[in-house]
Amino acid sequence: MSRLALLSAVSLAFATPLAAQENAAPITPANPVTPDSIVAASTPEEWTEIDPGDLLVMVLAPGDDESPRFVVIQLIPAPFSQPWVENIRTLARAHWWDGTSVYRVVDNWVAQWGDVSEDRPLPEGVVSPESEYASVLPPAPEFDQAVFPLTAMLRSMWIEEFVTGEIVEAPNADAIKQAIARQKGDSYALETAFVGGWPMGSGPDTQRSTTAWPVHCYASVGVARDLAPDTGTGSELYAVIGHAPRQLDRNIAVVGRVIDGIEHLSTLRRGTGDAGVYESRDQDTPILSVRLASETEEAEHWRYQYLSTQSESFARYVAVRANRNDAFYTVPASGVDICNVPVPIRHIDPLTE
Amino acid sequence: MSRLALLSAVSLAFATPLAAQENAAPITPANPVTPDSIVAASTPEEWTEIDPGDLLVMVLAPGDDESPRFVVIQLIPAPFSQPWVENIRTLARAHWWDGTSVYRVVDNWVAQWGDVSEDRPLPEGVVSPESEYASVLPPAPEFDQAVFPLTAMLRSMWIEEFVTGEIVEAPNADAIKQAIARQKGDSYALETAFVGGWPMGSGPDTQRSTTAWPVHCYASVGVARDLAPDTGTGSELYAVIGHAPRQLDRNIAVVGRVIDGIEHLSTLRRGTGDAGVYESRDQDTPILSVRLASETEEAEHWRYQYLSTQSESFARYVAVRANRNDAFYTVPASGVDICNVPVPIRHIDPLTE
Repeated sequence: MSRLALLSAVSLAFATPLAAQENAAPITPANPVTPDSIVAASTPEEWTEIDPGDLLVMVLAPGDDESPRFVVIQLIPAPFSQPWVENIRTLARAHWWDGTSVYRVVDNWVAQWGDVSEDRPLPEGVVSPESEYASVLPPAPEFDQAVFPLTAMLRSMWIEEFVTGEIVEAPNADAIKQAIARQKGDSYALETAFVGGWPMGSGPDTQRSTTAWPVHCYASVGVARDLAPDTGTGSELYAVIGHAPRQLDRNIAVVGRVIDGIEHLSTLRRGTGDAGVYESRDQDTPILSVRLASETEEAEHWRYQYLSTQSESFARYVAVRANRNDAFYTVPASGVDICNVPVPIRHIDPLTE
Repeated sequence: MSRLALLSAVSLAFATPLAAQENAAPITPANPVTPDSIVAASTPEEWTEIDPGDLLVMVLAPGDDESPRFVVIQLIPAPFSQPWVENIRTLARAHWWDGTSVYRVVDNWVAQWGDVSEDRPLPEGVVSPESEYASVLPPAPEFDQAVFPLTAMLRSMWIEEFVTGEIVEAPNADAIKQAIARQKGDSYALETAFVGGWPMGSGPDTQRSTTAWPVHCYASVGVARDLAPDTGTGSELYAVIGHAPRQLDRNIAVVGRVIDGIEHLSTLRRGTGDAGVYESRDQDTPILSVRLASETEEAEHWRYQYLSTQSESFARYVAVRANRNDAFYTVPASGVDICNVPVPIRHIDPLTE
C-alpha cells in the first residue's frame, strides 16, 4: 500500500454495490476485520428496503461540469417529527420547491434551502406544528427490541470474542478497560441507540417518562425556524455539512437524512452574507424539482436498503467501529459516538440485482 | 428575525474583528448570553497571540472565480507531535510542497495534499519518526493549570450562576440534572481538556501514567501514513472536513489545525478514485507554495490570536456551549463534546488595531 493510504473512507460504506456481499471473503486473520468487511459479510436478509414513498428526490441545477445533481433524502418514520414530515409531503406534492434554491451555506454547519424571497404562499394546511421534538416510545415490541444502548453494549462485550461470531459476556475482559468504559458515555444524552435504522438519544423527560429523539449527525436534515416557540413548517430545510451539532437536538425538528448526494450540498461555496446567506441571488443554487421518489417517472431507480440496526451484522459493525483493530490501528478507542456510526445504506441497481 | 434564521453560525466566532470586543454590549437579560456574546465581552488580556513561526501559509492556485486561496495552519506546540512538526518546518523551508497538490478529498472525512507522484525526494533528515502519539504531561505548573476537565466543570457549576460572573459551587443544582451529568462523558477519552489552546484527550496509559493526546476535530491537520508501525513523515498531510474522526486519536500524529481558509479545502470536489484520490491529475488543486508565516514577505499580515483556554471568558464560553439558553434554544443539552467547542481564533488586522 502506498504512503498515500491514510485509510479507507467511512463514506465508502454508502452506495456499496449489492454484488459486494455475494463476493465477500470470510473474515480471517488474513482478512482483517473492518467496518467495511463486516458490511460486506452481512446476509441479504439483514438489509431492509426503504419505501420509495419515504424518499425525497431533490434535483439541483447542473454544476460547472454540467452533470446532474441529485440529492436523495430519507424521511424519518413515525413516531418522530411526523407533523413536519406530513407538511413536507404536502409541499413536495404541490411542487412547492420547484424554482426555489439553496441560499445559505455555512462551513462546518449547514446548507439550507427553500424560498429565500419568503413570499411564496404555502399550500393550505402547511403551518408550524405545535409538537414535541421528542417522543415517548410506544410499548410495541419492535421498538423495545430496536432500542439498542450503545454504551451498554460496549461495556458487556469485547471485540476479540465478538467478531468471531460468539457473543461472550466478557469473562476475560481487563478490569481497567471496563472501568474506563464505564466512565465514558455520550456528551449529550443519557443513552444513545438506534431505533428502526435511525440514531437516537434517549433519557427521562420532566415527567420521568423515557423519551427518545432523533439526533443531529452529519447529513441530518432538519426544519429551519425562527426563535422559539416557532417550530418552522418544513418549507425551509437544512442539511448538516459538518461536525454533529448535537446542541440542536430537541430544539429543532429532525425530519430526515441525506442518503445519496450529500456532496452536492457540502461542496457548495460558503455564503458571506448575514448568517451565511449568499449576498446575491445569482450565487444561489437553483432547485429544479423536489418529488417523493414514488411519484417520479423513474420510481424503480430510487431503491435503497439499510443494514437493519437490529441485525447481528450491525451490532458487529458498531463494535468494530468502537474498537478498530486492523493493520492500520494500534490503539482501539474502546468507544464511539453515535454520529460516528453511520448506518450503512446502499443503492440497489435494478440492472445488476 | 426572518424565518431564514436557523441560528448564527459557530464558525463566525472565527475571524471576529478585534474591534468587536471594544464595542461589546454588557450581558443582560435583553442581550441573551450566547457563545458569540461571551467572546465579544472578553478582555484584550484574555487573548494570546500566535507566534508567526508556528503558522504555515499554504497558497492554492486560484479557483474558478480567480480569487486567491490561502489556507493558514497553526502547528501544535511541544510536547505534542514535535518530531513531525520539525519535519514540517524543514519541508516548508525547503519549499518542498511548492508544485505539489491537493490530490484526495473524501466527503465527511479528509482533504489530503502532498506529492501524489511519490517520487519527489525528501530533504535530508526527514524520515518517519519513531515517536508516541500521546505525551506524558510534564509537571510544569502551566500544564497542570491548563488541563481543564470539561466534564468535571460541567458537573460542578451551572450556567445560571456562572454567566453572571459569580462562580458558585452548585448548591441549588437539581439532583436529577446532576445525576444525568455524572453519567455523561466523552465517548473516546476518560477526560477531555484544553491544554495551551488545544483540545486534548487524556487517560492512563499501560504504565498508568496520565497521558494526553491531541484529538481529531473538524479542521485538525494530521500526518497521512501507511500501515502501522509506519508513522508518516509529515510530507503528506490531511485536514479533517467532516465529523470528528476521533477513532484516529493516538493512531495518527495530529500536527496542527487550519485556523483560516478551511473552506478552500472543504468545498473541493470529492475524489472518485480509490480511497477518494482524484482519478486524473488535472482534477488536483495545485499548491503554489507553503511557507512558515514568519518567513513570508508579508509576515506582519499573518497575525492571529486565540482566546486563552485558561481565561475566565473561555470557561464561560464552554459552559454556554454546553447549556444553550437563549431565545432560540428551549432544551439546553447540559453537555458538549470537546470538538463542539472550537477555540475562538481571530485575525488581527494591523491597519485597524
